[in-house]
Amino acid sequence: MKRIAIIGSTGSIGTQTLDVIREHRDQFTVELLACGRNISLLKEQIAEFQPNIVLIERKEDLSRLEGHLGQAKAYAGEEAMLETLMSPSIDFVMNAMVGARGLKPTMSAIKAGKTIGIANKETLVTAGHIVTDACKKYGAELIAVDSEHSAILQSLRGNKMSEVERIIVTASGGSFRDWSYDELKNATLQDALKHPNWSMGQKVTIDSATMMNKGLEVIEARWLFDIDYDHIDVLIHRESIIHSLVEYKDKSVMAQLGSPDMKVAIQYAMTYPNRLELHGTERLNLLEVGKLHFEPTDKDRHRCLDLAIEAGRKGGSMPTVMNAANEIAVEKFLKEELSFLEIAETVEKALATHTQISHPSIEEVLKVDEETRQRVAAQ
Amino acid sequence: MKRIAIIGSTGSIGTQTLDVIREHRDQFTVELLACGRNISLLKEQIAEFQPNIVLIERKEDLSRLEGHLGQAKAYAGEEAMLETLMSPSIDFVMNAMVGARGLKPTMSAIKAGKTIGIANKETLVTAGHIVTDACKKYGAELIAVDSEHSAILQSLRGNKMSEVERIIVTASGGSFRDWSYDELKNATLQDALKHPNWSMGQKVTIDSATMMNKGLEVIEARWLFDIDYDHIDVLIHRESIIHSLVEYKDKSVMAQLGSPDMKVAIQYAMTYPNRLELHGTERLNLLEVGKLHFEPTDKDRHRCLDLAIEAGRKGGSMPTVMNAANEIAVEKFLKEELSFLEIAETVEKALATHTQISHPSIEEVLKVDEETRQRVAAQ
Repeated sequence: MKRIAIIGSTGSIGTQTLDVIREHRDQFTVELLACGRNISLLKEQIAEFQPNIVLIERKEDLSRLEGHLGQAKAYAGEEAMLETLMSPSIDFVMNAMVGARGLKPTMSAIKAGKTIGIANKETLVTAGHIVTDACKKYGAELIAVDSEHSAILQSLRGNKMSEVERIIVTASGGSFRDWSYDELKNATLQDALKHPNWSMGQKVTIDSATMMNKGLEVIEARWLFDIDYDHIDVLIHRESIIHSLVEYKDKSVMAQLGSPDMKVAIQYAMTYPNRLELHGTERLNLLEVGKLHFEPTDKDRHRCLDLAIEAGRKGGSMPTVMNAANEIAVEKFLKEELSFLEIAETVEKALATHTQISHPSIEEVLKVDEETRQRVAAQ
Repeated sequence: MKRIAIIGSTGSIGTQTLDVIREHRDQFTVELLACGRNISLLKEQIAEFQPNIVLIERKEDLSRLEGHLGQAKAYAGEEAMLETLMSPSIDFVMNAMVGARGLKPTMSAIKAGKTIGIANKETLVTAGHIVTDACKKYGAELIAVDSEHSAILQSLRGNKMSEVERIIVTASGGSFRDWSYDELKNATLQDALKHPNWSMGQKVTIDSATMMNKGLEVIEARWLFDIDYDHIDVLIHRESIIHSLVEYKDKSVMAQLGSPDMKVAIQYAMTYPNRLELHGTERLNLLEVGKLHFEPTDKDRHRCLDLAIEAGRKGGSMPTVMNAANEIAVEKFLKEELSFLEIAETVEKALATHTQISHPSIEEVLKVDEETRQRVAAQ
């Protein structure tokens, strides 16, 4: 029986993690549920999954949980989270927290030598160097939860990293994959929010349209699989059926395919290296799909992709700046304060005006993150 | 250092096996070379690879090898082959012999507990039940050499057979993939010999046009991976880039892709479960390929596919009859004594008029094979 902790249990990844657990009650129990402010959904989750530990963001919400906790103990705030995550009664931590705040819980779980499903992008983008070193030191393991990284993980199974020639991350191309650079000048928020394949939050949908999402994934891949940027390629594959590929030195290419459903990758992270039945997800029907297309990325239209990889190559505090600037730029775009192409411009400018720290600590990463947000917001 | 025996060293698979060895002299040595009558090529191979044992078909050719043997001892005939294959100085046997004659050498290598690269189709098609039992008994291992089976083997790496939902074998569709059933009535030998993707021998090219080749591969897959026919599908994929796929119970689908070059699969069989650099083979460039297509098979146009699978399901001596009848029918087609559609009719008739033996021995398999050939030839 694997005892699961879910950080961000009321979000998209969190609820899907609980869907997986619901289907496999003989394999998993819920030890810990942590969320922000969605207390009403949390109450339902507590009633159904009966965790032993419940964590919420604000002290003032604790009273709303009274009488709904069953066997659970409830705590509020970051300190309580960092401490309870180290509990020996947790086998697997699903970190589905959004934003740089997800960094500290990851480090806490790493220090306790846990296996961690890593759906929090910032962990690897902004602190890949710290996190991977810590994993080695404490014997912790990070497991990909993104579809692309899960595909790479699966394509690597039973092979050695020394046999790998390159990793090929596929990208749907997002809402604007068929738009020219000139057309992008007039792209509206409504246009950008229409993602062709995946149903996701607004932030990710915009990141997918700018291809920043793919840039972040390249950085994550670099750390998750300990491979340098020269050996990671990005390929536009509009159907999102091949979720990513690994080319080996013997010219053999392994790929993982499937319908666009996050649950496959979420469950795989939880059962890795084994597999369990997964109900409710559509089987891949290649006859129905009929065709798979592959196209190159474009320097001009996908400026954010290059910016991200450049920041990744420079390392140190640069990816933190890139990520924070992008988050604020996307927020501004969502409020229609920026045009679509100004997102990349904003990120570029933030990177150009930052003085790089070579080996930032977690505290420095968080400080640079905060400073960049304020700087970009004030522009 | 892996010591290799090659049965059928002067054929297409044999010479490509030697190409692989030539590139990796630090990994492989050639212990044994066996061929039929191509003595002049054999002489070159002996000079280059300096085997310790040389086997040829006919006693009268032995004198032609005199002065060209170096350190090698030469023998002629089947008995000598069956005996020398059991030598403890052989680690890996590549059985690239064509036809039912390949069965006995396989059994000999199995009894000696060898690892065997199985490029001889008949071994598994006609004697899958005997061969797989014997492998268990003697601790021998059969490794796929066909591109499709190698793709399946690679897609299974690091996973369990109990996790598999189905195997999907891809087929190029052969020379007639865009022909209607009515057009097939007038298909000529010249039309049939134009295979779109692979450069292969005439027999395989015709089998590819009738889809019998895929039927044989389904039977081989059934035995190689111990999976029943209900869990093997065939899919037409005209580009032959995805060499086959494995769908798991968690809806994840693994696939192996590559340029159409047998050498990848040959080398993988020899290095399994590891990989080595492979030079001279083109890297897969999905941007160049651009699109991958998937189409269903067709009951009428691909009658041979169904006939083969039906024979496989019935088991016993039926696959032997199916295979032997097909070989003779293809020979007749190559001599323009049969029309294209008469190949399937000939196989169907041979199956309908055979009295099935449920659990044939190797001797019975060979007898049924011979009887069927004579029977079909005489029609």
